Amino acid sequence: MADRTTLIDARLPRGFEDRTPVDIAAVDRMIATIKRVYERYGFDPVETPLFEYTEALGKFLPDTDRPNAGVFSLQDDDEQWMSLRYDLTAPLARYFAQHYDRLPKPFRSYRAGYVFRNEKPGPGRFRQFMQFDADTVGAAGPEADAEMCMMMADTMDALGLAGKYVVKVNNRRVFDGLRELLEVEDDTRWLIIMRAIDKLDRLGLDGVAALLGDGRKDESGDFTHGANLPPAQIDRILNLTGWGDPTSGAKGASNRITIDNMRDGNEANATLMGACDDLDRMSLMFDAAGYADLGSERIRIDPSVVRGLEYYTGPVFEIELTFQVPNEKGQPVVFGSVGGGGRYDGLVSRFRSEPVPATGFSIGVSRLANALKMTGLLSSDEQSGPVVVLVLDRDPAAIADYQKMTSELRQAGIRAEMYLGSSGMNAQMKYADRRNAAAAVIVGSNERAEGKVTIKDLVAGAEQAKAIKDNAEYKAAKVGQWTAARADLVAELSKIAAVAKMRAEG
Amino acid sequence: MADRTTLIDARLPRGFEDRTPVDIAAVDRMIATIKRVYERYGFDPVETPLFEYTEALGKFLPDTDRPNAGVFSLQDDDEQWMSLRYDLTAPLARYFAQHYDRLPKPFRSYRAGYVFRNEKPGPGRFRQFMQFDADTVGAAGPEADAEMCMMMADTMDALGLAGKYVVKVNNRRVFDGLRELLEVEDDTRWLIIMRAIDKLDRLGLDGVAALLGDGRKDESGDFTHGANLPPAQIDRILNLTGWGDPTSGAKGASNRITIDNMRDGNEANATLMGACDDLDRMSLMFDAAGYADLGSERIRIDPSVVRGLEYYTGPVFEIELTFQVPNEKGQPVVFGSVGGGGRYDGLVSRFRSEPVPATGFSIGVSRLANALKMTGLLSSDEQSGPVVVLVLDRDPAAIADYQKMTSELRQAGIRAEMYLGSSGMNAQMKYADRRNAAAAVIVGSNERAEGKVTIKDLVAGAEQAKAIKDNAEYKAAKVGQWTAARADLVAELSKIAAVAKMRAEG
Repeated sequence: MADRTTLIDARLPRGFEDRTPVDIAAVDRMIATIKRVYERYGFDPVETPLFEYTEALGKFLPDTDRPNAGVFSLQDDDEQWMSLRYDLTAPLARYFAQHYDRLPKPFRSYRAGYVFRNEKPGPGRFRQFMQFDADTVGAAGPEADAEMCMMMADTMDALGLAGKYVVKVNNRRVFDGLRELLEVEDDTRWLIIMRAIDKLDRLGLDGVAALLGDGRKDESGDFTHGANLPPAQIDRILNLTGWGDPTSGAKGASNRITIDNMRDGNEANATLMGACDDLDRMSLMFDAAGYADLGSERIRIDPSVVRGLEYYTGPVFEIELTFQVPNEKGQPVVFGSVGGGGRYDGLVSRFRSEPVPATGFSIGVSRLANALKMTGLLSSDEQSGPVVVLVLDRDPAAIADYQKMTSELRQAGIRAEMYLGSSGMNAQMKYADRRNAAAAVIVGSNERAEGKVTIKDLVAGAEQAKAIKDNAEYKAAKVGQWTAARADLVAELSKIAAVAKMRAEG
Repeated sequence: MADRTTLIDARLPRGFEDRTPVDIAAVDRMIATIKRVYERYGFDPVETPLFEYTEALGKFLPDTDRPNAGVFSLQDDDEQWMSLRYDLTAPLARYFAQHYDRLPKPFRSYRAGYVFRNEKPGPGRFRQFMQFDADTVGAAGPEADAEMCMMMADTMDALGLAGKYVVKVNNRRVFDGLRELLEVEDDTRWLIIMRAIDKLDRLGLDGVAALLGDGRKDESGDFTHGANLPPAQIDRILNLTGWGDPTSGAKGASNRITIDNMRDGNEANATLMGACDDLDRMSLMFDAAGYADLGSERIRIDPSVVRGLEYYTGPVFEIELTFQVPNEKGQPVVFGSVGGGGRYDGLVSRFRSEPVPATGFSIGVSRLANALKMTGLLSSDEQSGPVVVLVLDRDPAAIADYQKMTSELRQAGIRAEMYLGSSGMNAQMKYADRRNAAAAVIVGSNERAEGKVTIKDLVAGAEQAKAIKDNAEYKAAKVGQWTAARADLVAELSKIAAVAKMRAEG
């Protein structure tokens, strides 16, 4: 079938990646931990398919200037446009609206699944990636938002990240109020302001002040145009949102002081004050349950949190991992966000005439898994390989016997395989090494005739071999290798498997 | 945001479905069992993304008359065609070819994932569904195929289906040889013959004879055109492939007799004889490991097995569930196939100049899960709901206290939630019922002032209530309800949770 002139390139479209056994096992363990927390909070799993009608998803991706950009879409037989979901929130809104009558309200659910972005891929930016979401639909009060934040904090604790994260909380309506106060009519200009505030963590007060004013030249010499606000307006924004600036000294201030500062001078605006009332109620719950204790705060009100998605209507939150990692240039930087969410009261109402408030949170699975690997909290060890039964005698009856030995081991619960390639003994031993095998079973025709098996403990053998310098000596010593009766095969290998298990468990 | 005139229909494109908590939990349990078996066989998880370049997938779907039919495809920015995978085999071939140098050979791997078919949906036919595959790439001998069959049998046993299935085995090259013997040149005519053979299970020898000859009229009066073969050729096909016909009396014959019958009269054709040699070697392994014992055969050579996919080149296999279920008309029919596979030696060679033999197996996850539910082997019980802490006093300090009680319960490992809706006490109790809650915590302002909590055991309460006929009596009795000190909240509910757990475990 193969023709050298017409071979197809074995490659993936850009922005897609294959997953290795080690990655799959690590992420599965992480997801199991997250699920346990969500279920303890009363959330149940619900899944939607990967396709939705395009109109059901709506257009809420941040910064998509081109129409239909960001989403993979195609036309169905009946000419209707379908899209692959770009997040798990929009499909949940459709789900809730569709199954409204039979669902309990409020409705708590969670789901992990792939989402797709039809964007230019880059380092760490994929076009297919996994999110893990939890949502409460049908709950209007900030208590539901507060619960999301506490659940995220508990999730981080359950993953071993205690002391290494903070859940930051803000309210979109703070910005709505701010916009009213600043009387910014133009949407593009407002977007420039929001983008500037979003950079407070990275650029500090001076950098953001420049972006709100005349513009800013970065280290590489690139110039970013500013919002051209007058100094009084810049001060007003920085006084409110700059409260959490690392250089401002306000870090570690209680959430109550932060909210009071947000109100200060903005009392005339009802929208902003209402948003602060909600933050007050959330703050009360964080305090009562011990999430905001000074010095070890797990949840912090931070007025500089923006969040890009356009469907948020109230409280917004994000998890920031606070430990440092080296960036591309080797400089230490804060690891940063691994997830976020907020209230999206308008999404379900697109389908139904009654108002349906909702709030939710989304974790970026790969990003969180990477963070856990970096901190040594998610083992990336390969699982112990199978026992490899070598095939040295290719007589059909002998092969059937190798197969029988393999089956016996499997029935005893031991991971085992018969070598299925066509290579000789040396290559088979190399294969066993490559498979990370705990042991090899070696039976030639003589051993078979005598009812014997040779067993090689590859882990113990490798350790003993370290002490032997000379190659000839090594071969003569046959380290970690012994001969047993065929009838004792399972018993001998059970011992090795038990030791390997103990070793794996530390 | 909602405008009655522009509401969007909350619905899914045809052929896609949402998944419920009960279904997700059941399928997760089933997949965990399958994984355990595959890992014991030395297989490791590997996953590929949902998109591939269209040319990398190739066109191997059965019976797709229209070009590009069956597959969801779209053009990337650079005009290249990408497709959603229609199975997990073609992407694995690309994966192995791409990562050839660093993979052990033979390479054993498994994966569960969604695949997509752009087809007309129907009852039980979805456009997105999950498959669970295992493959061995780089192993040429029928031992690798035999191992697949044994692993599938062990998987069915592990799922509790012992005695309720048979893994049927055949070889595509038997048909290649048959075609040579019958000298059928025309592809369409050959397809008619293969489709006729494929219906042996359902139509029996007479029905297939009709389809191989002049054609057949079914019960509804529809006429299917036949292959118009002469009687001698029809006999030759039926003698070979009809061996497994339920009415032929050959069922339960040993695999060796079946293979001898396949050879009988066809000795002149080297292709067919070579295929039988492979089946002989597989049969030897089934016998040695006890999979083909007469009367309780788990794997059976069946020359009527065809398999639709076009990439198979050697042994093919399928799992048939042999118990009966009612069809749409209420008549008992055999449940039938839940998975299949075979050898696909040409797939990897599309990417590489060296030959790369491969064999694999695919389970239809939903279909198998349905079979397990029907036989009572996969529990479809909802998991026990959370303890619901009612919100009767909406003072912010009271709400913070409800939240604190909820947090205490969660920290003790008890599934719990605070009611987050805006309804009153009766609706909250109904909500708790709907959530399948084990208990409700009821604290009004008086109880709060006194440091008390009222607990209602909803399960015990429901049982006691059965004995009470009168509604007034029921209300007065306050069945399953008692008051405890606030400090004993966790201890009291731990007892209820322990009883609920015992009940769930039977």
